[in-house]
This record gives sequence, C-alpha cells and structure tokens, in this order.
Amino acid sequence: MALVVQKFGGSSVADPAKLKNAAQRAVDEFKAGNNVVVVVSAMGDKTDEFIDLASQLHADPAPREMDMLMAVGEQMSIALMAIAIHSLGYDAISLTGAQAGVYTDNVSSKAKIKQIDTQRLHKELEKGQIVIVAGFQGVDAEDNITTLGRGGSDTTAIALSAALNADRCDIFTDVDGIYTTDPRLVANAQRIEKIDYDEMLELASLGARVMQSRSVEIAKRFSVPFRVRPSGNNSEGTLVTNTEELEQVDVRGVALEENEAKITIRDVPDTPGAAAKIFNAIAKAHVNVDVIVQNVSAEGITDLSFTVLQNDLSAAQKALNPVIENLGCGKLDIDENVAKISIVGVGMKNHTGVAEAMFRALADNKVNIGMISTSEIRISIVIEAEQGKTALQAVHEAFGLHNAR
Amino acid sequence: MALVVQKFGGSSVADPAKLKNAAQRAVDEFKAGNNVVVVVSAMGDKTDEFIDLASQLHADPAPREMDMLMAVGEQMSIALMAIAIHSLGYDAISLTGAQAGVYTDNVSSKAKIKQIDTQRLHKELEKGQIVIVAGFQGVDAEDNITTLGRGGSDTTAIALSAALNADRCDIFTDVDGIYTTDPRLVANAQRIEKIDYDEMLELASLGARVMQSRSVEIAKRFSVPFRVRPSGNNSEGTLVTNTEELEQVDVRGVALEENEAKITIRDVPDTPGAAAKIFNAIAKAHVNVDVIVQNVSAEGITDLSFTVLQNDLSAAQKALNPVIENLGCGKLDIDENVAKISIVGVGMKNHTGVAEAMFRALADNKVNIGMISTSEIRISIVIEAEQGKTALQAVHEAFGLHNAR
Repeated sequence: MALVVQKFGGSSVADPAKLKNAAQRAVDEFKAGNNVVVVVSAMGDKTDEFIDLASQLHADPAPREMDMLMAVGEQMSIALMAIAIHSLGYDAISLTGAQAGVYTDNVSSKAKIKQIDTQRLHKELEKGQIVIVAGFQGVDAEDNITTLGRGGSDTTAIALSAALNADRCDIFTDVDGIYTTDPRLVANAQRIEKIDYDEMLELASLGARVMQSRSVEIAKRFSVPFRVRPSGNNSEGTLVTNTEELEQVDVRGVALEENEAKITIRDVPDTPGAAAKIFNAIAKAHVNVDVIVQNVSAEGITDLSFTVLQNDLSAAQKALNPVIENLGCGKLDIDENVAKISIVGVGMKNHTGVAEAMFRALADNKVNIGMISTSEIRISIVIEAEQGKTALQAVHEAFGLHNAR
Repeated sequence: MALVVQKFGGSSVADPAKLKNAAQRAVDEFKAGNNVVVVVSAMGDKTDEFIDLASQLHADPAPREMDMLMAVGEQMSIALMAIAIHSLGYDAISLTGAQAGVYTDNVSSKAKIKQIDTQRLHKELEKGQIVIVAGFQGVDAEDNITTLGRGGSDTTAIALSAALNADRCDIFTDVDGIYTTDPRLVANAQRIEKIDYDEMLELASLGARVMQSRSVEIAKRFSVPFRVRPSGNNSEGTLVTNTEELEQVDVRGVALEENEAKITIRDVPDTPGAAAKIFNAIAKAHVNVDVIVQNVSAEGITDLSFTVLQNDLSAAQKALNPVIENLGCGKLDIDENVAKISIVGVGMKNHTGVAEAMFRALADNKVNIGMISTSEIRISIVIEAEQGKTALQAVHEAFGLHNAR
C-alpha cells in the first residue's frame, strides 16, 4: 500500500466548492488503494483578516501571539476538509500541527521543523482514515504553537513526506507546473516534465515563485521527490527530483528578470576593503544587490558594476554617495533600465559550449551583453531592458526548449 | 497576592474597541496587585460563520470536526486579547484549552471537564504574565480538541477558579447583574447584590438566561463564589455564593414566564401507569412539560393538568389524542394563554407564611390561581396570561423586593 501526501494551498481551499474539489482528489487517491495524508493551508483571505485585526490592536504584535492567531487559519481548513471528505462518504480526521507531531524550534513566525513524531499519523492511517494535517504550523518543546513562515505548508508537506517515507508528494497549486520559461513572454514555453532540485532552486531565485526555496531545499536534503501540479485540472505537472532521475539536458529553463538597474562606480581604488565598504553601505540601506562584476584593475583603480531592483535605485544612490566620496572614487554611471536573462541546467556542469551557444544566440539577435555572471548550473547576462523579450525568445529557441518535455 | 479570574463573553470581545476595553479591565486588576487569569469566548459572530461554512459541506458534520472548527473562535480571541494587553504595556500570554491543561471526557461538542492540570498556568503567573485562556474548549485523553457546549466559557472560568483556588471570579456580560425581576416588566426591579447558587439556578430555569445552569452547578459543587457583572460599566453586579454568605430573605426574586398553555385531561382512569403513558407520548414528541398537577381522585377517575410552551401545544395535542382514546379518558380542555409566576428564595425553607403572602397578594389584585407547584425554594403559580404583569408587580411589591439590595 503506497502512501501519498497531497498539499492544497490557500487558493485551492478558498471556498466550499474548492474544498469539495480538493476533498474529491484526496478520496480518489484513497479509492486507488493508497494511504493518504492531506496538508492544507489557510483559506484564501483568512491570513489578511487576522493581520488586519491584530494591527488594529498593536503596531507590532508579538510573534508568539501572531502564531497563535495565524495557526487558526489552517485549523479551520483541516476541520472543513475533513467534513468535506465525510460528505463524500469516506473517513477522515483532522490534526493540528501539534497533534500531528510537528515539533519545531521556538522561533515564532519562522520556526524550523526539528522532528516529526509520526505515531499519531500512523495510528490514524492504520484505522483507514484520510489524515488531514494543518500546514504551516507546529509546536515547540514548551507546547507553544509556532508557524513556519512563508511557504510553510509546502514545508510541512515535504517534511511529512520525508518522515513518513511517502511514495509520492503532490503539491497542488494554481499553476500547471514549472515551465521552460514564462509562458506569458514566450508563447511556445513548455511545461517541464521533470526537473532537478537545484534547477528548481535556481529558477525559484529567478522569480519562478511557485515555491519558497526552503521547501525545495528540505526535499533535496531528504531526497523527497515531489510534483508541482494544478488543482484545477488533471495535468501531471512537474516532478521535482534528483539529477539521476532526469534526462540530461544542458539547459532546463530560461528566466528573464526585468525592472533591474545597473550601477557602475568608476575609478574605485583597488585596495583591500573598498568593495566591503561599498556593499556594507548598500546593505545598511536594505537594498539587495544582484549581479556584481569587477574588472581586472589597471594602475591601482578599477570599475565596479552591479545591479539592483529599479525600486531600490534611489536608496542605493543615496547610500553610495558618501562612501564613494570617502574612498575617492570616480562618478556613478547609472543605467536605469536593464534586464537579466539566465539559463539554468545541471547539465551545463559537464558540457562545454553552453555559454558560447547563449552568446551566439544573443549576438545573432543583436543583443549587446552588459555583464556576465555564472554559477555552476546557471549563466546570467545583463542586457538592455528593451531587448529582454527578444533575447528570452532567442535563447529559449537556441537551446531547443520549445521542444522540451 | 490574590488571584482573580475574569471571563469575557462574545459580546465583550466582539471588535477591537471592545477587546481593548476588556484588556484594560484585566490590566486594572493586575495593577491592583493581583494575579490575573482571563477567560474569553469567541468574538461575536464567529460561531455563526463557522456553522455556516460547515453546513455548506455537510448536513450533519461530525462533532469531532465541529469541535476542531469551533475551537478556532476562542483561539482567535485569546491571541487578540494578549496583543491588546501588550498594547497597554503589560505582559500577557495566551493559552488554548489544551495548553491550559483543561482535560475533558471525549464527548465531542458537550464535553465535561474531568481535571485541570494547573502547572503551565502557575508557571506563567509566576513569571508575572496576565494569562489568557480559551474558554469553551479542552482536550481529551487522546489529544483531541473538545468543546464544552453552551455556556462553556463560563464553565471554563468557574472550573479554573476552583482549580486555582481563585480569590475572585468575575463573569463579565452585557447585563448589569441579576435582578429581583425583569426590569422591562417591573420598573422598580432592583439589582440583587448577593444571591445563593440554588436561587440562581431556579431563576435561570425560569428564564433569567444570564448563565447556563451547568456553570452555576459547578460553582456550587466547588464553592466558587463568582460575580455576574457588566463589561460596559463599573457596577459590581451580583455576587453568586453560598447561603451562609447571604442576608436571609424569604424571597430573592420573582419571575414571570409567558407564552405557556395549559392542557387538562378530564376523567383519567386512576390506574397505575396511566400518567406514565400520557407523559411518555408527550416526551416522544419532544415537548417539554412544565407544571403538572393531579387532583386527588374521586371514584376511580381524576383530572390531570399540565403546562407546555404555546409553540409546542399542537404537537402535544397530536401526541395525546391516541393515548387518551386508548386509556378511555374524557375530553381535553385547552387554555391557550396562561402565564407562570414564580417566587424564589432559600429563606422560604425555614419560614412559614410565604405561600400565604403570595396568595394574598394575588387575591388582593383579583388574580385567579389556576395551578400551584412548589419546590423547596420556589413557588410557581399558573394564572391567566393577561393578568401576568399585574401579578408580577403585586408579588414583587408584596415581598418588598423594590427595596431589596
């Protein structure tokens, strides 16, 4: 008898009709002869309702009490999901995070799961129950309710899958799966059938916000394969798993990030600590820096370029002005409108020529390369924003992703 | 250092403004040097919202899952109450029923408290926390969330007061306290300063629905004095306590119940089992019978009279017809419009003449007595409905209740 874990996000349980739809999916798995554990998030807008209520009482409510309040959202969902499954004529029991044995550290509102005591879960599964577990929540060693932070219900589902040694874990979402690139920008973007954990992490960091990185990292650490699939239709979605399970390709997906700006500081003295001072000032202004490039220095000075989000540009400039004066740098060159195109694939580790193929595709389309940054499984190139879409389509085609499966 | 338990009902925490008001009351007790435990109900209309959601999924949702769902209401309130107290600059921590150690039996939706483990409560009080406990809920021996049924938050407050040996228990409501009679019917009705548990129980059963009987019974069993007081002003309300603490009076309060109907069955054969058959038929129709009077029988037959709620009259008649035919009784006399006036007071146990004083007051006002029924601390008289208000005022005055304190 296989064990299947299903996770339904807030939009998949937002109202009674959607709850019934999710309940039917759980029952279908059960009828197919599987043990079924269902993890649910809070219904659609509940979270906002709670935050609004708390904010009317306190500008900065205590995290422990916010956890107590927020945990209510999932508790509602599990009870209603159990009732919905009962209405289909099947047995189901709801369990809070604490009842399901999800033990966390005591860091309110961003707790980490330390351990899962599966005793109760096994007991209920053995009774033939479909077991509904509240996502996003757990309990610390002193019996306080904790929550896991953003994407917490995914984390619960993955962690339960690991603890129960589940045969399958389905993360139901409102998207069809992971795509080779954004289908709104490239019409022939393809749904990816299987993707490696690391590729998923890189694409997530590039804006494919289907899941928080943390859940994927846990899945990778415990080798839990999981499927990102739509709750609204029967698509198989995308399986996220180990490299060994995958067909090797050089490039799995391409991502475009627009709304970036490029800052170049001219004539930075090439002395130890100069870069540290610059980026320390920017960090203090809470500005995230993305791609950083420093050329080889000539005659004791160098040019330093990096990108930030357009929204952060003025904050970054303000933070930089005193530092560059203090260091005796040259002027700031600002390009307010750049984009970043990235290719991701574990296959590129072992293949030469991937970067060249990307450069050639860009050159053939007259796209000028502004900056280059690489990791082991990613190559990112900063280009002019207005060429973003052209570049994305060219690169997507160059690596044959319109034929990808 | 004294320990004070405060309980706030749903209307006292219905919105952020009311929550703040309740929080201020808790802080005031704390500032006065007391340990404070606050028990709260679900916010105003939350309960209805949950029932509505569940009913969209199932005509008869499972009690265990309804408990899981309903417990959410109080969990919201405790978190928000803690946050409201923080905003006043004081320490507070919220605890669910389970965290507060409220152990119940496993009868979902009307669980009974078996035991309270006060360890966590004492620990938090010792830290100087105002401790907020979710009313209405507990946990059974197998870690399932249970709820205590109607009036459950009062029960939690009384039971916690007993377990913690509290010095005081204040039940905050939207009424000013217990009155000698309904102030809407008798303008000079007086707030009762102190009342005996049994008097409170009798008045509650007569329609003074400030509290459910069960909470009062628990308070009596464990000798927990408690105060019913308004959350909206500083009235001391009414202290409910042991007889020994009270000034002895013959009559503590008078109650009028309207909307009753009287049924008389003529010529009932005076044989064993006749009454049982009659009232069995009525019980099967889910009709509650109130006052029952049977006269001494003459020549093997008797007349049997009793009252029911007007709403139940036709159901009662339908249930009776086959039985009276079967028993060979005479016809049914129906009086569709009667009222019941009752006087309540533990003092009447030891005093003669209380009944006579009541009869005289009614006779002086030309009120005809239809039926009489007595308990040790109560005398109830059924009269014509149209004379109800006159009778109530006369009896209230006759026992000097307009001067009561």
